[in-house]
Amino acid sequence: MQRYFVPSSHFQDKLIRITGDDVHHITRVMRYNIGDKIICNSEYGKAALCQISQVTSDEIQATIETWLDENAELPINVTIAQGIPKGDKFDLVLQKGTELGAYAFIPFQAKRSIAIWDQKKAEKKQQRFEKIIKEASEQSHRNIVPHMKKPMSIEMLIEESKNYHVKLFAYEEEARVSNPNTFGNIVNRFEAGQNILVCIGPEGGFSEKEVNILKENDFLPVRLGPRILRTETAALYALASISYHFEEMRCSECQQ
Amino acid sequence: MQRYFVPSSHFQDKLIRITGDDVHHITRVMRYNIGDKIICNSEYGKAALCQISQVTSDEIQATIETWLDENAELPINVTIAQGIPKGDKFDLVLQKGTELGAYAFIPFQAKRSIAIWDQKKAEKKQQRFEKIIKEASEQSHRNIVPHMKKPMSIEMLIEESKNYHVKLFAYEEEARVSNPNTFGNIVNRFEAGQNILVCIGPEGGFSEKEVNILKENDFLPVRLGPRILRTETAALYALASISYHFEEMRCSECQQ
Repeated sequence: MQRYFVPSSHFQDKLIRITGDDVHHITRVMRYNIGDKIICNSEYGKAALCQISQVTSDEIQATIETWLDENAELPINVTIAQGIPKGDKFDLVLQKGTELGAYAFIPFQAKRSIAIWDQKKAEKKQQRFEKIIKEASEQSHRNIVPHMKKPMSIEMLIEESKNYHVKLFAYEEEARVSNPNTFGNIVNRFEAGQNILVCIGPEGGFSEKEVNILKENDFLPVRLGPRILRTETAALYALASISYHFEEMRCSECQQ
Repeated sequence: MQRYFVPSSHFQDKLIRITGDDVHHITRVMRYNIGDKIICNSEYGKAALCQISQVTSDEIQATIETWLDENAELPINVTIAQGIPKGDKFDLVLQKGTELGAYAFIPFQAKRSIAIWDQKKAEKKQQRFEKIIKEASEQSHRNIVPHMKKPMSIEMLIEESKNYHVKLFAYEEEARVSNPNTFGNIVNRFEAGQNILVCIGPEGGFSEKEVNILKENDFLPVRLGPRILRTETAALYALASISYHFEEMRCSECQQ
């Protein structure tokens, strides 16, 4: 069933008001009308099965039939800090990362980022990014819409990282040396409700200086498999692995 | 170091002959010349560190300095059978799937595939697909180039599936019902050297008839996390999870 994220201020008793682009989507793309059913989600994870009860050109009213008790969220809050990549690769990270359960996204201006997002550019992009995330959340049946944070410098990212229980960075060199911290060992120590920050370099990876700053601030280097992944694939590997570990595997069953 | 896949027939004693598009890449893109070093891989997984010893406009000779003993291949041969998707999504599956360690790819014409690849179209695409796979193999430091198989009908895919030890299909409905076969349980029973076939539906998923045919032919339905993935994301989830399980996690360490 089609799902729409609606601001919680639009939930009023048994009625939900839908405005903006979603009106077009409901009436023109899906061709729904009075009587058709949709799921409405608030940004805080509440979801309700609703019946469309009124349609005008700029607003739809839906009547709540039943609250849904569902959970499609990872038990761990995984934030992806992505070194700003070239072209539209960040769009891919947002779309696929949302499908795979990311909690939040932070673009950061890395030394080797070829693209530079000044404030004006970043503000223009912000709206598109939020649209990509919202649509991917609806399509993948998320309970919440991941947070899209403002672009940061590495210094701001270090400051931000103080809010996280575990901080990791994908470091290609780790693929070549033996490392007691396998990614699996680290993931296995995550606990439900923890905030995890996974930091991925841009094309060309982190500079030596960035590696040192990250290590000094308790970021653990991890390899994400023995192959060299493109920057936009690394976040997806990390998220899929964490989902697999906590949602599809039961470690007590590993040795059966 | 830059890596090139060279047909094994071009490996001659201590010399390797490089022809075709790679000549352009070496001389124009990378601007390498005599004395520069590259890695040459045969399609069977042999890899050698080489020094460029001769450059002409249509051929490069490289002298083998040392054979490399390296392995970036999954211990399991995972073939992705992808229901033909819309637009250029199959390109993404090939590129990312190669980075994530796929052994082979099979496009198949599913009931709900919107795009239809007739023989002429398929032949034209084949060359581009092989180029995407070769470049992704070089970039991700694979030892082999994954096989690109010809498009199949569902009946041909069932016939093909007899060559595999385990056959799976991603079935969205499994995300909604409780299933004793979690993806993790199934992956945990894979053994090194086995051939695994992972079958993914196109946009809109498998038809009821296809589900029945797959089940009758011993394909196990699996869910790939509790969120609904787009068709092109499903293969990447499966490959990343299998890599994580066998390459980054040691199950004996799970409970430490």
